[in-house]
Amino acid sequence: MVEEVKLFGVWASPLSKRVEIALKMKGVKYEYIEEDLTNKSSLLLKYNPVHKKIPVLVHNGNPIAESLVIIEYIDEIWKHNPILPQHPYDRALARFWAKFIDEKCLLVLWNSFWSKGKEREVAIGEACEHLKTLENELGDKKFFGGEEIGLVDVVANFIGFWLVASQELSGLELLTEEKFPKLSKWIREYVNHTAIKENLPPRDKLIEALSARFGTASK
Amino acid sequence: MVEEVKLFGVWASPLSKRVEIALKMKGVKYEYIEEDLTNKSSLLLKYNPVHKKIPVLVHNGNPIAESLVIIEYIDEIWKHNPILPQHPYDRALARFWAKFIDEKCLLVLWNSFWSKGKEREVAIGEACEHLKTLENELGDKKFFGGEEIGLVDVVANFIGFWLVASQELSGLELLTEEKFPKLSKWIREYVNHTAIKENLPPRDKLIEALSARFGTASK
Repeated sequence: MVEEVKLFGVWASPLSKRVEIALKMKGVKYEYIEEDLTNKSSLLLKYNPVHKKIPVLVHNGNPIAESLVIIEYIDEIWKHNPILPQHPYDRALARFWAKFIDEKCLLVLWNSFWSKGKEREVAIGEACEHLKTLENELGDKKFFGGEEIGLVDVVANFIGFWLVASQELSGLELLTEEKFPKLSKWIREYVNHTAIKENLPPRDKLIEALSARFGTASK
Repeated sequence: MVEEVKLFGVWASPLSKRVEIALKMKGVKYEYIEEDLTNKSSLLLKYNPVHKKIPVLVHNGNPIAESLVIIEYIDEIWKHNPILPQHPYDRALARFWAKFIDEKCLLVLWNSFWSKGKEREVAIGEACEHLKTLENELGDKKFFGGEEIGLVDVVANFIGFWLVASQELSGLELLTEEKFPKLSKWIREYVNHTAIKENLPPRDKLIEALSARFGTASK
């Protein structure tokens, strides 16, 4: 049977790119459909009527929404080059950290760069705490997944790329070599990994898009 | 090898009870340790240093936090009487709805009953929308999992029991037979299911605890 794999995404979204990284790790060919979030397609609304958000993967006509759910699906359908570890306890830990990044880190990191006043101040404090927690969790491992990238690395793509671009543009030095040497080393390894570097948005285009939305250095 | 299974929980917490339902479905014996959230034990802080929250399952010395992560772990370790469906697409759908209840429904349902003024008004509107979405998803199935309870039913225990007690106490009629006939039927089936009814807090004690915290009817 010929597999039909379609991904509805947005080029600048780390959530879309998580799914592209997972597909790349499995070597799965897919058709990519760029969505305009100011004018969502009828197909996106049909495939994700509850959240009306990207990314949505459509596999042989069956739609799946929510990036973490999609990644687990991809890992269960195409079993080679596993994204989650094999042992249930290691899988639980990977899910725990993926959830931590998704639910605790993303919004406060974003708000550290792009919100204003008191909200920004509070976000910066929380972001530093969460980055310390991740620095400890990474320890001396090359990737969160060990010698190879795994679920947590895929989910952490915002930290590996978007955060650095946001720092450059906003002037806020949240994650530095001095404060977070292990995460800094991880970022260097990360952006050079084949599955990652082929699934990053063009840096200049991303900075231009962020700049158009938020202006330049607001430090 | 003798299995050592410990659960750190709080009797009135639907999140703790989710884990107890999952253990009950598998017939796993466990030691239950009641936590005092105003004076958390050193073991809880040791086992869940990131969130410092219940529930925490400790299996043969290995701690796991976050109820959804724990349930998936339980389902992977004890494979009989599966909680998640077997096919990857059905598993993805179950994870999608579990996440929807966890992230979208719980807080707005809680705030519908126990917050004040404008916040409460907004929460009631959102809660009705989310309940409509769940009513549609349930359709004519006996349980969200089909003929038997599954992941989504386990995660929806707040709706099956705590919501009804909260309605009674607050006087707010959010989920009625007239507005949500399918969810109402589900609640009746649900609280009579063996794995569920043995894992519900005593109704009077729960209402007393909610009443002590929030007072009575605020309609």
